[in-house]
Order: sequence, then structure tokens, then C-alpha cells
Amino acid sequence: MNRYSVLFLPHNKKIEVDEGSLLIQAAMDAGVHINASCGGEGICGKCRVIIEEGRVGAEGFSEKLSREDIEKGYRLACLSKVESDVTVRIPIESKIDVSVLNLQSVPRKKARISQMNFDDLKEQGLFFPPVEKIYLELPEPTHADNKSDISRLIDHLRANHNEHQLQITLQTMRKTPDVMREEDFKVTVTIERPVRDGGRSRIINIQAGDTREKNYAIAIDIGTTTVYGQLIDLITGEALAEYGDFNGQISYGEDVITRIMYAEKPEGLKRLHTVIILTINKVVGKIVKKAGVTIDDVSSMTVAGNTTMTQLLMEINPKYIRRAPYVPAANLYPPFRASDIDIAVGRHVPLLVYPQISSYVGGDIVAGVMGAGIYRTDKLTLYMDIGTNAEIVIGNQEWLTCAACSAGPAFEGGGVKFGMRAAQGAIEDFSIDPITLEPMNITIGSVRPKGICGSGLINIVATLLEMGVIDNRGKLNRDLGTDRIREVEGVWEYVLAWREMTQIDRDIAITETDIDNLIRAKGAIYSGCMTLLEEVGLTMDAIEQIILAGGFGSCVDLEKAMTIGLLPEIDTEKVKFIGNGSLLGAKMSSLTNTIRKDVGKVTAMMTNFELSETASYMDNYMAALFLPHTSIGNFPRLKERMEANRSMWESRKSLRK
Amino acid sequence: MNRYSVLFLPHNKKIEVDEGSLLIQAAMDAGVHINASCGGEGICGKCRVIIEEGRVGAEGFSEKLSREDIEKGYRLACLSKVESDVTVRIPIESKIDVSVLNLQSVPRKKARISQMNFDDLKEQGLFFPPVEKIYLELPEPTHADNKSDISRLIDHLRANHNEHQLQITLQTMRKTPDVMREEDFKVTVTIERPVRDGGRSRIINIQAGDTREKNYAIAIDIGTTTVYGQLIDLITGEALAEYGDFNGQISYGEDVITRIMYAEKPEGLKRLHTVIILTINKVVGKIVKKAGVTIDDVSSMTVAGNTTMTQLLMEINPKYIRRAPYVPAANLYPPFRASDIDIAVGRHVPLLVYPQISSYVGGDIVAGVMGAGIYRTDKLTLYMDIGTNAEIVIGNQEWLTCAACSAGPAFEGGGVKFGMRAAQGAIEDFSIDPITLEPMNITIGSVRPKGICGSGLINIVATLLEMGVIDNRGKLNRDLGTDRIREVEGVWEYVLAWREMTQIDRDIAITETDIDNLIRAKGAIYSGCMTLLEEVGLTMDAIEQIILAGGFGSCVDLEKAMTIGLLPEIDTEKVKFIGNGSLLGAKMSSLTNTIRKDVGKVTAMMTNFELSETASYMDNYMAALFLPHTSIGNFPRLKERMEANRSMWESRKSLRK
Repeated sequence: MNRYSVLFLPHNKKIEVDEGSLLIQAAMDAGVHINASCGGEGICGKCRVIIEEGRVGAEGFSEKLSREDIEKGYRLACLSKVESDVTVRIPIESKIDVSVLNLQSVPRKKARISQMNFDDLKEQGLFFPPVEKIYLELPEPTHADNKSDISRLIDHLRANHNEHQLQITLQTMRKTPDVMREEDFKVTVTIERPVRDGGRSRIINIQAGDTREKNYAIAIDIGTTTVYGQLIDLITGEALAEYGDFNGQISYGEDVITRIMYAEKPEGLKRLHTVIILTINKVVGKIVKKAGVTIDDVSSMTVAGNTTMTQLLMEINPKYIRRAPYVPAANLYPPFRASDIDIAVGRHVPLLVYPQISSYVGGDIVAGVMGAGIYRTDKLTLYMDIGTNAEIVIGNQEWLTCAACSAGPAFEGGGVKFGMRAAQGAIEDFSIDPITLEPMNITIGSVRPKGICGSGLINIVATLLEMGVIDNRGKLNRDLGTDRIREVEGVWEYVLAWREMTQIDRDIAITETDIDNLIRAKGAIYSGCMTLLEEVGLTMDAIEQIILAGGFGSCVDLEKAMTIGLLPEIDTEKVKFIGNGSLLGAKMSSLTNTIRKDVGKVTAMMTNFELSETASYMDNYMAALFLPHTSIGNFPRLKERMEANRSMWESRKSLRK
Repeated sequence: MNRYSVLFLPHNKKIEVDEGSLLIQAAMDAGVHINASCGGEGICGKCRVIIEEGRVGAEGFSEKLSREDIEKGYRLACLSKVESDVTVRIPIESKIDVSVLNLQSVPRKKARISQMNFDDLKEQGLFFPPVEKIYLELPEPTHADNKSDISRLIDHLRANHNEHQLQITLQTMRKTPDVMREEDFKVTVTIERPVRDGGRSRIINIQAGDTREKNYAIAIDIGTTTVYGQLIDLITGEALAEYGDFNGQISYGEDVITRIMYAEKPEGLKRLHTVIILTINKVVGKIVKKAGVTIDDVSSMTVAGNTTMTQLLMEINPKYIRRAPYVPAANLYPPFRASDIDIAVGRHVPLLVYPQISSYVGGDIVAGVMGAGIYRTDKLTLYMDIGTNAEIVIGNQEWLTCAACSAGPAFEGGGVKFGMRAAQGAIEDFSIDPITLEPMNITIGSVRPKGICGSGLINIVATLLEMGVIDNRGKLNRDLGTDRIREVEGVWEYVLAWREMTQIDRDIAITETDIDNLIRAKGAIYSGCMTLLEEVGLTMDAIEQIILAGGFGSCVDLEKAMTIGLLPEIDTEKVKFIGNGSLLGAKMSSLTNTIRKDVGKVTAMMTNFELSETASYMDNYMAALFLPHTSIGNFPRLKERMEANRSMWESRKSLRK
């Protein structure tokens, strides 16, 4: 895909974008404000820009533009797709606009995607696949050599492949006599490697002929809401197919607590177990079909999920998870076969289930820690997985601490008046004209807005703070003389989009209650980090890198997340995003036994803190209930920006007049 | 039970018997002949004896005896039960009778029952039970100590019971949360010990409270015809209950070959597998009920059976067992759970399946070798298991050889005109008046005869040989002037019981064809032994002890078995009988892991010979088709007896005149 530069004038800000990107998104990413409240359907007609050089797609024409405008080079930014290097001028129609040019704003900066790949593994000498295939041409039995079929197999492996102390499964044994004779005693055996030193390799499958090139693994992330699966080629390390589907347990409760309650009903546990297996089997069926592989060639499987999901998967009563003192059934799980719990793969397939740290820091987090390699770095790392729940891990190769934070669902749009999941029509990015207070809304799918998603919420609140529209307690400045700030039924709010610009036939606004919920959510997480650090005698500035996991991390603007005090303020280059950490960990352990070997050690090493039982937590939490925090000194970049902007805020009324 | 002595006059032979023994059996055991052809129902009235001292039961009166006879002390031996020490005179009515007194005959000598017991095991330091129970009083979880339930368990075992590197099963994990809380965190765990050094112990069950005293194992012998089970108390080593039932597979074929053929039909393997599981479950149900134990307290299970039975049990296609070059699927089986193959015990129960040596020397033989301790003795031992098939093992702690012999079913009454299983009415013992050639038949149950069982056949043929009624090729002496020796439809036979003395309304006879079949059967076994010995450069006289296994061994008269050349002639004190060797081995390995540890080594050490492929076998076989053998020099005791008797045989015609 071609990349083009877009130069915004008079701001003189330049940004590189992919061919076909919308100009309005490019402006947002470059930190350039363009009034735009309709989300990009060309309805409001406010995002007029002049194309001075270069070419944009014809969609930029609109009935909102006169023929004269078009001839002058005007286009609507929300409809114009970049087709070459372009120079775009934002019309300067008043002194107000000129003053905006001096605003301190920062370009959008999302976390770099960072995943360890197969070649890295090989280079680092960490490629020990948990399952291997070996092709054998066995001597045929005679009267003088009529040892048993299994002895023939094992003796040959010992003599010719240096394989000793092999075990074999009952299933393989059952297949062996017929399979051996299918292609004249030419067979491929699948060998499962031991996880611990001194353990024994085990023959788990036998196939006729040479099938070495077909060796696959399945990695599954069981989320409370969604189940993702990947089919991995164990020869190339590639993910050949991926599929996600809703966790069928949703019908029995939205969150882990309601699921646990359901599991306590008669037959409830069995039901939830059956349902998650059905979901997994659907995902497995899809990825196997998508990748066009034979199910018998799937040799290994790994699953990661939070503690409740994992116990339900394994049909272990989760009832003590929700009762003080919050005891999970187990940390490490014993080795078993996927078919033991009715997962629809071959009976030979070993299933690794990621271990749990505690009732609320589960296998999904351990998988992320393993997949991201935190346990092997010397850098002090903050790992955050924000989804339905929020978990944090702090540490490095020498020590690891973790905690679950009661952040609530604000980051997934929950507890927010117009909150919604990150789906089409969600406002995901936002900018504001500091003088007119007109918004620039960017929605997912570039359609008229329906609501606000989690990352949108962060961007909105951060921007409102930077522009002095809200104070550090999240209260709206009631005194700015705009009808966008108003009181409805005793609650103050800022209107992001008027009714006629939305899909829902209502004004979409962000309320002080929404902001308050966000502050409590981010406060819970930030104070969780502080508490963990304090417990090991460190402070926030010791953090050397941040790794974000979870769908949330992919679209959040790092600088904005720091602005609201969700993340500590560090160089954004030091923030990485690994996507679905749980799925990543599951994938990585399909590729290398080093992870399986280390996971027990890492699990034992991870010290869990029950924040509600940790004395200093409440103090830290109270201190974090400000934007960005009681101590703004910890956020020097934000402090500088706000100070630079302060004179403008103070003069905005006079400028508007 | 009281023991009394019985003195027979004028033979002056004394024997000790249990209270209530029949006089006729006592006479047989003492080597004293009394004419008696009706099997002991008092029909023929020939077995008149005089009670000179002591007391016998009132059943000895009979209408066959006149009042005068009774007053003189006459009784029928077949109805008289010993009630004190007695002196019994056999009426001497002619010179013939006197000459009989000088006959060389030997008292019945059955093999001593010899089984290693629990105390021996303990004394020899071999008592390492494969499953142990440990009682724990765990600290209850608190906020400060909310580790997972499994960690609580494992940490406690490590700290207080020196148990390290413990594994745990998924099933135990599932039960743990609820069971722990049932009796305030007081639990009993069942721990399965590793078989190999360096293996890990595994927690396989958890129960509320203290259940240490209830720990049981099940041992199963899967015979082609019969399945036996024992319930063993792992605290006392006692067998609390035993039960045997027909193998349900009998409906699908009498022997292993027809079973294999059935297994090759569509769904045949699955069907036979299901049927044997049903039989085992019935046996398990019976012994568990009989012993009055709770199924959850059964912690371990061992199964032994021949190769075909074992493959059917494990649902492994046995088709290559019956096709040259006769390849079994496997020798050793992997560890698995009894419930994996639907055996109705707890899901925690590990199942040990005894390994196979070859297609026709199976786990039943290995179990016998292990149970009898052959692999730990320095004595050169001949082990024989004669059932539907005959298998032999020769060796000691240094080496072991084995072979299956195609003996045919003669020892189970098959291929014999009036052959039958050892059931009520089977002639099981026999003596003959050397002059009159009148028989003394002893039947199982002391009822009129129905047929001849295996041990009866041996006793009859041996006695006929010793008395010169048949020659060393098994041919009847046609020239003895008795109507008991006759030709029917071209086949010569000796009539054991006339029609009116039998239950079947026909004369019961032994034919030359029957004798021929027995000679071929014993010849196959004896020559098998010779071949094995030759292969290691030894001869028969090297044998230092014989161990007999199988139901057959319990009632066979050792001296008679040597007379026909089934056993080599050694001191009968050196012959031991262990009963069902397969069941014994299964029981022993329930009690000690040393057997499980050694069994792999022993299996590897046992060299199997396919006799049909061993060059010298046919020569040895041809030489063994005589009574006792071409080389009578190997049977010095028999030779001496026969020489001593010869003059009487030769004079019998003149004596009779």
C-alpha cells in the first residue's frame, strides 16, 4: 500500500498516511482541529478544506459545497480520500482561527504493535516445539522378527532418531496396527515433548506415509465476552486462520460474577461448561475450515482465559472465587487431552491451559506476560490488560507483582450515558476548537455518531481537560457561553453532536457523571500501579516500558491516556501494544516449549495483591481521583501544555466576542 | 477343622484326612484300590470295607449291605465319612487280593499351594503400595492467605509430609473446592506412587474427613472363558471378596481365534470390547457389594489376561495376532485410568494392564511369573499354566524363556469322547485292580459319573500305563480277557462305568483316540520345555522347581502327571501350585509397586520362542509322543515302579483263572 504525505496549512503540520485515508482522520492524527460534528457522513458540511496541491478522491464533492467552492478547491475533509501527496489548507476565516494555530496539541500517537515472531524465537534459540513429527520407514515383520508393533516403532526411534524413554498413548496404540500396514510400514509419528526436564517424550499420534509438512496447533483465548482462536502452522510459525465469536455463556450473564452465580444453580456448572465447549468447537471448526487443514494434523492446543472462564472450561465449581477470601481452585493445571473435556479435535491433542495467579488475575494475564516476554526482560515493565476487567502486572525478569483493579466497565462504554462498544458509529476520536468549542468527532466507520466508545471517552475527556473545558475534578466550566455546555435534569454535560447529526435522533453528550466514572476507573488502575510499586519500594518514574494488551489498547491515544492519568507519563516510544495478550501467549506456547517450561516458575514468581486488602491502596486511589492526578508534577509534559494554553483559554471569551 | 488318621489294612497304609472326608477318597489318596465304579452314590455296592476301629457317619449303611454285614462292621466306602481316627480293613477274599498288596503304587500327591503373602512382602521390604492415603488438617484460607485450594493442599503436603513434585489429576481438582469445605478443611488424599524412579507422585482423589482405613484395590484376571475378580484391602493385604463369572464374549466364540475373527467384522471389535467391560463391571459390582465397601474407596486396579483378551479389553484390533508372523500390538501398555475404558470404578482409579510377551504368551503369564516371584529366585524354574491354552516359562532371576504350546483342549476335557469340564459328575480320579481290571472311579461331587475331566484323564491314562493295560504308545492290551476292553466302531476302549452306573444312560469309556489326544497334548508341552532348555544349552534334569498355575494344576496328581510325561520327574516336594497365576499377579501388583517397577524389565528379559519356527521343536515333539517319553531313562521312579509291577501283569491271567 502506498504511503503519502499530507501537509496541513497554515499549521504547517505534516503527516504520513496510507493511500485512501480520510483527510479528517489525517488532521486528527496530526493534531489539527477541523470542525466536524457529524462523524464523517458529509451531513454537517462544516469540515471544508482547500486542496492546494495533490489529489483526493471524488467523494470529497458534496451538495454542501457550491460549484464556486468546488472550483476554488474546497472539499469536505470527512469525505476526501488521499490519492497522492497533498497540501491542504484549513480556511482561516477569523482571528479566532489564527489563535488556534498556537495551541499546544500533540499528534495522535498509538502504541507500536509489538509481537515476538517465529524468527525471533529461532534466533534466540527458544524454538522447541511442543509437538514434532518424525517420518519412519520401518522394517516389515518376519517370523524371525515378530516383535510387537509398538516395540518396532519404539526400537526404531531409539536406534535411528536417538529418542529414548518414549511413552505412548492408548489412542496411538489403538491406531498403530492398521496404520502401520496402510503404506507398507511407512509412518509419521507425532511426538509430544516433555515440559519439565527429565520428563519423557510421548508418541501421541501415528499417521500413514509422510505427513511431516502438516503439523498445526490451535491457540484459544476465552474471554468473558468473546472467544478467539488461531490456527498456527508449526512449520512456518504463521497463523493460517483466525476467528472470533461471542462466548455462548453471555446468555447466562454478562460478567464473571453473574456467570458464577449461574454456575451455582443445579446443573448450572455443567451447562456453562457445555456452552463454552460448544463455542470453542465452533471457533475450532471455523479456523480449521478457513485454513483448509485436516483435523488429524492438529497436534497441539493451548487455551488462556481468566480464572472464572478457565474453571468453567474445566468444569471446576467457581463459587469460591466470588466469596471472601476469594480463593481460586488451582494455579497450575495438570496435563490432559483436549478431548477429555470434549473439545472437537483429535484424541491425541494435548491441551495446555494457562495457569492462574489468583481469583481475578487469570491465565489470560499469565499468557500475556509470557507472550510479551516480560519475564525475560531487565526493563521494569508495566503490563496492562484493560477489557471487561482491568489487570496490571509490574516487574521484570527478577520479580513480578500483579493485581486486578475494580475499574468497572467505563473503558468498554459501560456506565457512560451514551457509552457503547467500539463498533460502527462510536465516536472514537475527538478534538475541540478552543475558542468556539465546536467539536471534531471521528466515528468508527465514518458514519453519523451513535455513541461513545472507551477510547473515544478518553480522548474526549483528555481534550476537554487540555482545553480548559473541564477542571481537574472533571467538572465542566459552566461559564463558557456555549449552548453545548448545559444542565439536563441536574447533570451538566457537553453536547458532542446535535440530534440531526446523529443516528439515534437524540443529542449525544458527555456528562459529568460519565467523566466521574472514567476518573474512578482510571484512578483504580493508576492507584493499583502505585500500590504495587510501593509494595516493592519504587515509584511511578521507575517504569521503563509499558505494554498494553486487550482490544482497548489498539486504538487508545497514548498521550491522551497519559493526560487523564490512566498511564504514567513516559516517552510514548516506550509503550508497546501486543493486541490480545491472552491469544498471543496461547500462540507462543504452541510454538515453543520454553514458555511451557517457564510458566510454572513465572506463575510462582508473580505476587498477587488483593488491592482491597492492601493498606495503602485507598490513599493512592483517593489521590488518583483527579485529572490527571493530585500530583500533576508527575505529568510534566501535560503540565507544560496546559500552562502554554492557559492564556488562550482565559482570553477565549474576549476572542469570541 | 479336625484332622483324623485313616489306617488301611491289610495294606498298612495310613493317611491324614479332614473330618468328614469320604473313605473312598482317603483310599485313593493313600494309593489303596477299592473296586468302585459308580462314582460314590452307593449304586454298585462294590466298595465294601470293614470299620475295625473308630467311627464313620451313618451314611455308610446301604441297602446293598445285609444286616449281617452291617453287624460285622461292613460299610460302603463311597458313603462313609470319617468322624474319628479309623482303622479300615479291605476284605481279602482271594489270592488275587493278596497279590495286589505288593503292587507298587504311590499315594496321591497334589502340589502344595504356595502364594507369597502380605507379611512376606513386608518382611522382604517389598511393600510399596501403589496408592496411599494421607490425612490432612489444612489451615483455613484467610484474606492474608488466599492461595488456591490446590496450592493449599500441595504446600501442606510438601511442608508436613515431605511430598515433593506432586501432580494432581483434573478429576481431583474438580472435587477439591467442595470436598475441602465439607469437613472444615480436613481431608484425606489418595496418592498414586510413580512406577519408575524419578517419576512423580500424583494426587488422584480427595475425600472429606479421615478415610485412611478404607483403601482398596481390585485385581482382575480376564480368561478367555472366565473372568475372576478380587477385592483387596490395601491396609491388611487381605482379599475381602472374590467372584468369577463367564466371560460374556463366549457367545461370540469359544476360543481366542474365533474371537479375533469376530473382532474383524464391522463393529465386531467394539462389540467384544463392550462385552468384556460389561463382564468386568459385573464382577466389580459383585465383589464391591460382597465386601461391603464404597466404590470411591477403591483406589487402584490391575488386570491380567492373554494377549487377545488384553487387546480386546483395550479396543486394539487383534487381527494380526492370528496372521503370520503373529505380531501383537504392544508389549507394555501406557498408564491410564480404568474409567477411560468405561470400567465402573471411580474416575481416579489407575489401571495397570499386565504387559504381553508375544501373541500367545500374554499378560496372564507375565502376571504369574511376577506373582510367583520366578524373576527373583536363583532356582531354575519351570512355570506352566495349562488352561484353554498352555504356556510355559523356564528360567530364574538371570534369564527367562517362554513359549505357547499348541496343546489343544484335552486338559479341559476337549477332544475326549466323554470329556467334560471339571464339574459335578466328572471322573477326576481313578484306580484299577491290576488283576480283575475293575475300576475305582472318584467323581466330583461323589455322584454317578457323567464323563471325564482333564485331571481324571491324566490319572486314568497314567494308571492304565502303570498297570500294563496300555503300552507306551497308548494302545490297549487287547489280550487281557476282560469285557471292559473292547472295540467299538473300529476304536478300542476301556469301559470305566457301565451304563446303569452312569448319569448319561451310556457306558462311559476312555478310547485310544482319547489317549492319543492326551499324548499329543502332553507331548506338545513337554517338547516345548525341552526346546526352551536346549535353546539355552540345558536339559530337563536342570529343572529345580516346577510352579503350576491355572485351575488345572489344583487337582492334578503330580506323580501321575509325571507318569504320562506331562511333567519332568522331579521330587514332588519341589512342585508348587499357585492357583490362578494371572489373578495372583494382579493381586500382588495391587499391593506393591516393586512388581510394577520390575515388570517392564522382566518383560524385556523374557525371550519368546515361536515353537513352530524353532528347528529342534518337531524332533522333540516326535520323541515326546510316547508314555512317558521315548527316553524312559528320564523317568527313573516310574521305570522302577513299572518293572516291579511287571511280573504281576504277566501273571494276571493265571491269577484270574
